[in-house]
Amino acid sequence: MNRVPAEGLVLVPGGSLITATPEEGRALALMIARHTVHNIQPDLDVLKGGRPNYATTPESIIAAAHVVAIEFATIAAANGYWRTGA
Amino acid sequence: MNRVPAEGLVLVPGGSLITATPEEGRALALMIARHTVHNIQPDLDVLKGGRPNYATTPESIIAAAHVVAIEFATIAAANGYWRTGA
Amino acid sequence: MNRVPAEGLVLVPGGSLITATPEEGRALALMIARHTVHNIQPDLDVLKGGRPNYATTPESIIAAAHVVAIEFATIAAANGYWRTGA
Amino acid sequence: MNRVPAEGLVLVPGGSLITATPEEGRALALMIARHTVHNIQPDLDVLKGGRPNYATTPESIIAAAHVVAIEFATIAAANGYWRTGA
Amino acid sequence: MNRVPAEGLVLVPGGSLITATPEEGRALALMIARHTVHNIQPDLDVLKGGRPNYATTPESIIAAAHVVAIEFATIAAANGYWRTGA
Amino acid sequence: MNRVPAEGLVLVPGGSLITATPEEGRALALMIARHTVHNIQPDLDVLKGGRPNYATTPESIIAAAHVVAIEFATIAAANGYWRTGA
Repeated sequence: MNRVPAEGLVLVPGGSLITATPEEGRALALMIARHTVHNIQPDLDVLKGGRPNYATTPESIIAAAHVVAIEFATIAAANGYWRTGA
Repeated sequence: MNRVPAEGLVLVPGGSLITATPEEGRALALMIARHTVHNIQPDLDVLKGGRPNYATTPESIIAAAHVVAIEFATIAAANGYWRTGA
Repeated sequence: MNRVPAEGLVLVPGGSLITATPEEGRALALMIARHTVHNIQPDLDVLKGGRPNYATTPESIIAAAHVVAIEFATIAAANGYWRTGA
Repeated sequence: MNRVPAEGLVLVPGGSLITATPEEGRALALMIARHTVHNIQPDLDVLKGGRPNYATTPESIIAAAHVVAIEFATIAAANGYWRTGA
Repeated sequence: MNRVPAEGLVLVPGGSLITATPEEGRALALMIARHTVHNIQPDLDVLKGGRPNYATTPESIIAAAHVVAIEFATIAAANGYWRTGA
Repeated sequence: MNRVPAEGLVLVPGGSLITATPEEGRALALMIARHTVHNIQPDLDVLKGGRPNYATTPESIIAAAHVVAIEFATIAAANGYWRTGA
C-alpha cells in the first residue's frame, strides 16, 4: 500500500479555521475536503486509480465542488465572513 | 495541457465576499463555483471535453445550480442579505 | 441558438432578497433557481430538449425541489422569516 | 392534462412559516416540498405515472426525505425551534 | 397493505426538538428521518421489499446518513448544542 | 450476524459536541458519521462486503466526505468555531 503521508491525514491542516483572507479560507476548505478523502481512503494508489475517471466526469467534479462549498460555509462563518470594520 | 489561465484559478475572485448588490453577490457565487471546478480540473481541454455532455443533461445542470445555491447562501449571509436600513 | 431573453438571465430578479410575504419569497426562490439554470445553459432549445425527460423523472424533480429549498432558506433568513411582531 | 388543483400550487400553504407545534411545522415542510413538486410538474397524470416507481425506490424516498429535512430546518428556525420559555 | 402503525407516522415523535443530551438528540434525528420515510411510503411491505437492497448498498446508507446529519443540525441548534454553562 | 460492537452504536461518542480543538471536532464528525452508518446497518459483514466497492469509487468517497462536512458544520458551530479571544 502506498499510504498518504502523515501530513495528508491531518484533518484540519494548521489546526484552526481562522484565516487572514477569504482566499486562504477557500484554500483551507479545499484542503480539509481533500484530507477527509485521504482519511476515508488512505491508499494513494487506489485514490489515483480512481482519479482519471473522477476528474474527467463533470458530475463528479460538481459533487466535489459541492463538498468544498459546505466546508467553506463553515470556515466563512468562523471568520465572521472576513468583513472589515463590521 | 491547455491550462486554465491564472485568473481562473483564484479561489475567491476579488478577494472578498462583500458585494454591493444581490446581483453581484450571485455573480460571485457562480464565479467561485466555477473557479473551484477549475482548481479541481485545471485542464480546459478535459473540462470542455466533458461540457457538451454536462450542459445538456438536466440532472447535471441542477447539480451545478445546487452548488451555486450553497455558495450564494454564504455570500448572502456575509452581506447581511443586503437588507437596507435593517 | 435560441437564446434565453435577457430578463431570464438576471440572476436575482427584482434585485433584492426582501419580499412582502413567504409566498413571494418562495416564488423568488423558484425564479432564482430557474435563472441560474438559464445562465448555465442559455440555449432554450437545448434546455427544452432535455425538459420532457427531466420533468417526468421523479428523481430530477426532487433534485430541482432540493435546490429551491436551499434558495428559500437564504431568502427566508433574509426576511427574518416574515415573523410578525417578533 | 390533469392539472393539479389551484390549492396544490400555493407555494407556502397558509401563507406563513409560523406554526404552533413542531408537528405542524413538519407537516408544513412536507406540504411545501410537495407543492414545489406540483409547481415544477403540474400535470398529475405525469406525476402519478412516475410515482409507483419513485415511492418504491429507497434512494428516491431518501432524496425526498432530504428535501423535507431542509424545508424543516428553515421552518424550525422561523419558529425559534418552538423552545418554551426561551 | 401492511400499514405502518400510527405511532410510526407521527412526524416529530415526542412533539419537541428539545432533548436532554446530544445522544437523545441524535436518536430523535434518526427517528424523524425514519418517520418521514414512513409518511412518504406508509406500506411496510413495500418499504421492507426495498430494504435488503438499500441497506446493503453503501451509497444508499450514505444518503440516509446525510439526511440524519441535516435533521441533527436542526435539533442541535434547537438545543443550543447542549453547551453546559454557555 | 457479525454485529458492530456496542461502542460502535453510540450515536454521539463521548456524549458531547464540545471538543478542545478543530482537529478533535473533525475526528468527532467522522466518528458520528460512521456510527450513524453502523446504526443503519449493524451487520459488519454486510458493511465490509460493500466496502471494497465503496472506498474505491470516487463518487462514494465524495458522498461520504459530504456527510462529514455537514456533521462538522454542526460541531464547529457548537464550539463557537474554536475562535480564541473572539
